[in-house]
Amino acid sequence: MKQAKFLVMEGCDGSGKTTVSQAVYKRLKEEGVDIIYTREPGGIDISEQIRAVILDPKNTAMNNRTEALLYAAGRRQHLVEKILPAMEKGQWVLCDRFVFSSLAYQGYARGIGMEEVMKINEFALEGVEPGHTIFLDIPAEVGLERINRNRSYLDRLDQEGLDFHNRVFQGYQEVLKKYGKDTKVIDANRPAEDVIEDVYKYLVEECGVCAKR
Amino acid sequence: MKQAKFLVMEGCDGSGKTTVSQAVYKRLKEEGVDIIYTREPGGIDISEQIRAVILDPKNTAMNNRTEALLYAAGRRQHLVEKILPAMEKGQWVLCDRFVFSSLAYQGYARGIGMEEVMKINEFALEGVEPGHTIFLDIPAEVGLERINRNRSYLDRLDQEGLDFHNRVFQGYQEVLKKYGKDTKVIDANRPAEDVIEDVYKYLVEECGVCAKR
Repeated sequence: MKQAKFLVMEGCDGSGKTTVSQAVYKRLKEEGVDIIYTREPGGIDISEQIRAVILDPKNTAMNNRTEALLYAAGRRQHLVEKILPAMEKGQWVLCDRFVFSSLAYQGYARGIGMEEVMKINEFALEGVEPGHTIFLDIPAEVGLERINRNRSYLDRLDQEGLDFHNRVFQGYQEVLKKYGKDTKVIDANRPAEDVIEDVYKYLVEECGVCAKR
Repeated sequence: MKQAKFLVMEGCDGSGKTTVSQAVYKRLKEEGVDIIYTREPGGIDISEQIRAVILDPKNTAMNNRTEALLYAAGRRQHLVEKILPAMEKGQWVLCDRFVFSSLAYQGYARGIGMEEVMKINEFALEGVEPGHTIFLDIPAEVGLERINRNRSYLDRLDQEGLDFHNRVFQGYQEVLKKYGKDTKVIDANRPAEDVIEDVYKYLVEECGVCAKR
């Protein structure tokens, strides 16, 4: 079931998701909106432990389906320990990445299949769906160029080449076709302040994010 | 698809699975059978890391579905890194616990539902099924009494009380009803040497385990 106050930001690596989410979060917070910003593993101890297994550069033998199950496990714990309790208190939740990421990365780019990956995520989420999803749209090569410029440490996934990032980009297009009829697509190949402004407006004007409940 | 050479031993805690499996394995090995004995996580580094997260007594906040996904992840990696490669070399594989354990523990005793837990395991196994499964049958209280007598360190699951162990026992009965039509049930509330003899005979006479391929 869709949770009206559950807002998700999606996009390829380097699309500016984190920069944009945090800026919009800060602005809403300053206006008195009762909102939290989070991203998996979200400071949840068990999810952090799972993420450490996923991203350890030594774990080169990790099978694609093992990886997908671990992401679903970390997501489950983050959901029940952080997202759901916040919403029960009446807070808005702005989450940087969610199920679409697994569909694009593990389902499409790793070749497992989106429907297969959806099944284990359905197990993890028990019917909880974001009320609104925003997709920050950017060409794969622009995203990769931004990553290489900005990050000094590359984890196991960052180390994948341009080919993998192109597949993720393609994967997101497939995800949007199949599951994204309500997703808001925003052009992110523009200055950050313009993207932030558009996301802010969408949340306030179309999703009903406001200070008063 | 059933893998003829893939043999699984199931049963409640304290049913003697490990003692019996290892004794039968040793005897078959001495007779020249090309067989390996394994149990999850099976020395597979990634599965060991996952198991450490599951069993850490500090992780009391772990959600039941998180636990089930982690077991499925560890099982997947153990399958692709150890069980399948052994069978590809023509070896028999004797595995201490497999999917039935997750159905009984997470599906039934934790209350998630056996069909739900089966779904994520189907994702993990991609159609691989044991050729033969043996269930060592023992009353829950006898199993628990044996655990308390023999183990000095209790992990997060051992620390569950009699009530949980009774539910696991019940769970196995449900698993056998629903998925166990080909499972060999052996009375394990007898001296170990009698159980070992029956398991040995079953494997040799009915499963075709032998030294010559």
